[in-house]
Amino acid sequence: MSTSFLLEQDVTRALHEVAQQLRVDCVRCSAVASSGHPTSSMSAADLVAVLIARHLRYDFAEPKAPGNDHLIFSKGHASPLYYAMLRAVGAIGEDELFRYRTLRSRLEGHPTPRLPWVDVATGSLGQGLPIGVGIAIAGQNLDRLPYRVWVLCGDGELAEGSIWEAAEQAGCSHLDNLTVIVDVNGLGQRGPTRHRWDTAAYAARFRAFGWHTLEIDGHDIEEIDRAFSVAAAHPGAPSVILARTRKGRGVAAVEDREGAHGKPLPDAAAAISELGGVRDIRVAVAHPDPLPSRVVPPGQIPLARPMSAHAVPLHAVPLHAVPLHPMTLHAVPARIPAQPAQDRRARPVTRWRPPAFASGSMASTRDAFGQALALLGDVRPDVVVLDGEVSDSTRTGLFAQAHPERYFECYIAEQQMIATAVGMQVRGWVPFAATFAAFLSRAYDFIRMAAISRASIRLVGSHAGVWTGEDGPSQMGLEDIAALRAVYGSTVLCPCDANQTAWLTGVLADLPGVSYLRTFRGEAPVIYRPGERFDVGGSRVLRWSPDDQVTIVAAGITVHEALAAADLLADDGISARVIDAYSVKPVDAATLRTTARETGRIVTVEDHWPEGGLGDAVLAALAAGGAPMPAVRKLAVRTMPGSATPDEQLQLMGIDMASIATAAAELVGTEAGPSARTAVGSGASIGS
Amino acid sequence: MSTSFLLEQDVTRALHEVAQQLRVDCVRCSAVASSGHPTSSMSAADLVAVLIARHLRYDFAEPKAPGNDHLIFSKGHASPLYYAMLRAVGAIGEDELFRYRTLRSRLEGHPTPRLPWVDVATGSLGQGLPIGVGIAIAGQNLDRLPYRVWVLCGDGELAEGSIWEAAEQAGCSHLDNLTVIVDVNGLGQRGPTRHRWDTAAYAARFRAFGWHTLEIDGHDIEEIDRAFSVAAAHPGAPSVILARTRKGRGVAAVEDREGAHGKPLPDAAAAISELGGVRDIRVAVAHPDPLPSRVVPPGQIPLARPMSAHAVPLHAVPLHAVPLHPMTLHAVPARIPAQPAQDRRARPVTRWRPPAFASGSMASTRDAFGQALALLGDVRPDVVVLDGEVSDSTRTGLFAQAHPERYFECYIAEQQMIATAVGMQVRGWVPFAATFAAFLSRAYDFIRMAAISRASIRLVGSHAGVWTGEDGPSQMGLEDIAALRAVYGSTVLCPCDANQTAWLTGVLADLPGVSYLRTFRGEAPVIYRPGERFDVGGSRVLRWSPDDQVTIVAAGITVHEALAAADLLADDGISARVIDAYSVKPVDAATLRTTARETGRIVTVEDHWPEGGLGDAVLAALAAGGAPMPAVRKLAVRTMPGSATPDEQLQLMGIDMASIATAAAELVGTEAGPSARTAVGSGASIGS
Repeated sequence: MSTSFLLEQDVTRALHEVAQQLRVDCVRCSAVASSGHPTSSMSAADLVAVLIARHLRYDFAEPKAPGNDHLIFSKGHASPLYYAMLRAVGAIGEDELFRYRTLRSRLEGHPTPRLPWVDVATGSLGQGLPIGVGIAIAGQNLDRLPYRVWVLCGDGELAEGSIWEAAEQAGCSHLDNLTVIVDVNGLGQRGPTRHRWDTAAYAARFRAFGWHTLEIDGHDIEEIDRAFSVAAAHPGAPSVILARTRKGRGVAAVEDREGAHGKPLPDAAAAISELGGVRDIRVAVAHPDPLPSRVVPPGQIPLARPMSAHAVPLHAVPLHAVPLHPMTLHAVPARIPAQPAQDRRARPVTRWRPPAFASGSMASTRDAFGQALALLGDVRPDVVVLDGEVSDSTRTGLFAQAHPERYFECYIAEQQMIATAVGMQVRGWVPFAATFAAFLSRAYDFIRMAAISRASIRLVGSHAGVWTGEDGPSQMGLEDIAALRAVYGSTVLCPCDANQTAWLTGVLADLPGVSYLRTFRGEAPVIYRPGERFDVGGSRVLRWSPDDQVTIVAAGITVHEALAAADLLADDGISARVIDAYSVKPVDAATLRTTARETGRIVTVEDHWPEGGLGDAVLAALAAGGAPMPAVRKLAVRTMPGSATPDEQLQLMGIDMASIATAAAELVGTEAGPSARTAVGSGASIGS
Repeated sequence: MSTSFLLEQDVTRALHEVAQQLRVDCVRCSAVASSGHPTSSMSAADLVAVLIARHLRYDFAEPKAPGNDHLIFSKGHASPLYYAMLRAVGAIGEDELFRYRTLRSRLEGHPTPRLPWVDVATGSLGQGLPIGVGIAIAGQNLDRLPYRVWVLCGDGELAEGSIWEAAEQAGCSHLDNLTVIVDVNGLGQRGPTRHRWDTAAYAARFRAFGWHTLEIDGHDIEEIDRAFSVAAAHPGAPSVILARTRKGRGVAAVEDREGAHGKPLPDAAAAISELGGVRDIRVAVAHPDPLPSRVVPPGQIPLARPMSAHAVPLHAVPLHAVPLHPMTLHAVPARIPAQPAQDRRARPVTRWRPPAFASGSMASTRDAFGQALALLGDVRPDVVVLDGEVSDSTRTGLFAQAHPERYFECYIAEQQMIATAVGMQVRGWVPFAATFAAFLSRAYDFIRMAAISRASIRLVGSHAGVWTGEDGPSQMGLEDIAALRAVYGSTVLCPCDANQTAWLTGVLADLPGVSYLRTFRGEAPVIYRPGERFDVGGSRVLRWSPDDQVTIVAAGITVHEALAAADLLADDGISARVIDAYSVKPVDAATLRTTARETGRIVTVEDHWPEGGLGDAVLAALAAGGAPMPAVRKLAVRTMPGSATPDEQLQLMGIDMASIATAAAELVGTEAGPSARTAVGSGASIGS
């Protein structure tokens, strides 16, 4: 039940009122929650007030509208301000605002995409800008839509290296559809920031990276408004507005005071009074499309519902209809708008024909991935590929040759690579990001946050394990499975041959969440038929007899060692089952439990540290059955490797065929046989 | 058997000869190894020749001498050049050089501290400079010795954000004891770098961060020599020398050619010929201390052993004794040299008295850590503390107040924080680095590499788990145990009460390798006596009876839930054992196996994702016993948390007392009892 009317005072006064409403609401919701970061929010209230009332183009009723601007609070702890903004634009009500930080509320301590207006979760500082850069690249190169990306950063987070990876990417990509607003309140969690209010220091850094910079008083409404217009109109470079502000602005008890970070104001009622009381202004945000609807009639900031009662005492101020100055529209460089990303969603990938490798030939899984990815690009126009300057090694170079317009070189900046992937999937694209398995660890925080963002990104790590050989441990992914398994909702796939890799590359395209494909460097035998289907959560029983005394569970390169070990064991009269557990997460628990019951003994073998890899996945699956477990022997990399040939490495680490055979024979020799023998259960098939 | 004599030509010619020797040796060792990065090495040969012959102060016979300069190859793939340099200075012989990249050789694909002259492992780009900054901070603030830190970077790695975290730290710390040499060869792995030879672009960026910059021709011996002198003499700022070079310099077949990265030269014999053949010059490097020994007699580059035969055909050139220009000594700002770090190694920590918390009171483990750390600083003058701008939260602020001279604010730059820790431990200091557990993921690659560096660093992560409460998932470390367990040689400790935390804080000080202490935010009951001793690898059996039907294994906050669950179970007539597995890695396998045998059923409960945490550690320990395993039920965080109170979070995630009791009761109800009952084994004691 909104009552809209014209404000009677000038624009500046009206925008100040909006800002004060935002501040009051920050104070109120933090007070009700008894936690939160109101002071870090209050410093940026004027910036956000001017942004939503005069510059943002966004239909809050249609958050997925393709022409909407994107607004990212990189300083996610300013969530009170974000939620106060949502109330100001009418997206949420006061009742929801007051459920801030409570059980089952969408208004979490830091914004997440549980709210439809939030593109990505923030709260780990220095990530919102890199992801915003990813969205801006999509806007410039893929969507070719005139939306603008607005990112609100804190000053403290500019210390993160990821900010400068983003600055380099944005500057070199001339992203003039990106405006970054830095709330330079000069105070961090524990005291002054490094540069306090020295916006010139930040400006010099951004300029060096090719940015257009503006330094303003972040509490001067007119300066802010002018800066936003100038920034948006500046062609050929991203803009950063460095706004000097005061933390806790407007409340003397906390304004620019240390010790007031991350806690409610000491006296909320007094603070609200000092801020002029509770307001109930609704801001009409210009819609993006069609363009004429963006023009807010001069002199209008329509109001929303009448003021309502709430838990914190309020001191309402009278609201006035005031004439606004005519709004300046942004000069957006003319581009041919492409179809929205969602319209380009492609045919189901099952129709796709992966590259074929002859059974019995030798091939590297990284080669298979590269070839498959290039072909996938033919049938899936939504697939985009990101490289960390190792495309020769990961083989994404093959995609680059076939589809240069959907290939993005991120250079040696893995955090920005992952952030770009996250940003592009916000726009409906299907990103694959590849580097050495080891170097995905550089972006682990981004991967962790991608899961909280409910992002769907595909990661590919090459040169996994000691089988990489001579390059030494710095280049060997030996913790990648552990790290990627411990990501919420992730999928972890470790193929052992080229046809399996090719198929799974296609499977990845339709997987939700964070998925990971692990490839290796050298060539291994092709053991599966071309075009054979592999499902997430599946496995392959490669050797099987009703008399099996032990099961060897392997993935990736160790599958081939396991097969050879089974031959060695057969020579000694021991019948060993071999399972290719290519899907490490989710692992094929049903098949594992069946084989545990049938063979009573399991040897797991992986080219990975012992912690958190295949062996632990197998143990966890067996434990989840609730029954007593079989004897399990875990073979893994237990000493620090150096340089050696790939096969020497496997031998040294005790994960080669001889070591597997020895471990299996010992297990058979020392343990009683299985308690029951039945046929192989469902969920697995006999491989070639 | 060296034969030294004066060179007859001018210095430039002599230094060029040294550079050509380095190039030839890069070609030779890569040819013998059939792998490696000779072209990335050859571009920097002139830089390194001038460095070792005229500027480095280093006693290769005493690599740990406290006055030695530090030389870090941040571009670790230029290992052929590093090893060629070692031969040139007489540190290794040709025989060892030719074992490059082979089994058991110290000369790995990328340098590691298996060589006594290597401070830290490199090979993950963008790490050598941040660590060098850490060493330079130690030189300036802790050691107060006039050594210089030299870092050789590639141009490609300047895209890494970690480089700019380091640039900011070094610039703001005015590290004029740091000289960075960037080998701008303009080619990456897959093609041109972003800026090719535009050294002005890099210079602008470094200048913006407060650096002194020099742009030179990296193949002009005299320009190089001058730049090194000017850089070292420049007061008040770190210097970066941006040297334009050509990859594969000196061999036309590969010089500045794409497709020649990371592989031996196509025709080594021809290349060596083109480079003027094999040489056998030994370079006398100036020693650091006492200063007079640094003065190389004018006109001398003494030679080493006579030329020897080797696998690759050689074309030796005649060597000449030449007069050198008088050497310019560096102007080193006068400082009071402190004792070398190793002399400050302190009394054994067992004499230390940790802070005491009254049993039965409530306390947070982060508070206990902060108080313990401050007291530890009193008795351990080698302890230094690094903060990621969250010292209020982690409680390292208490150390800052007590020992400001050994507290270093790294601001919100977790990669630089870990790199500083690694750099300081190179100098014998005992660093503790603390941030939120979640944000250690930001520096995971640095932690991974620290293990390869054989570095001893202590990491402390606060706000672990969903018990953090309202802040939401971005702030909750839920993958920290998985990530830290999967680090080679790491120790992972998860204390549950204040006295245990305080004791373990002291234990950390003497632990080798990467160690991790996980703390939580809220207050929990103090259950242990003040001063009670806890060992790495130990556990505490908190509830025990000979009739126990099930064991609950917990760590951290879940210990308290487990104790309450045992009470609930007792009410239902079920006798439950409770084990505090505070040492998650190494876990107390003996106690776990004993309890498995005795109770036959185990419930593990952790405030962490199910993958790679306490439950997996317990399963792995049980499996390692080789015997069939008991029924194990793993309770962990299995859905994405939002905001809620800490206790609501535990309940929602099914890791609270009621969930534990239910799981234990179900296990007892559905499973047969233990097969054998004996007394509790060694390795565990009954707690208070």
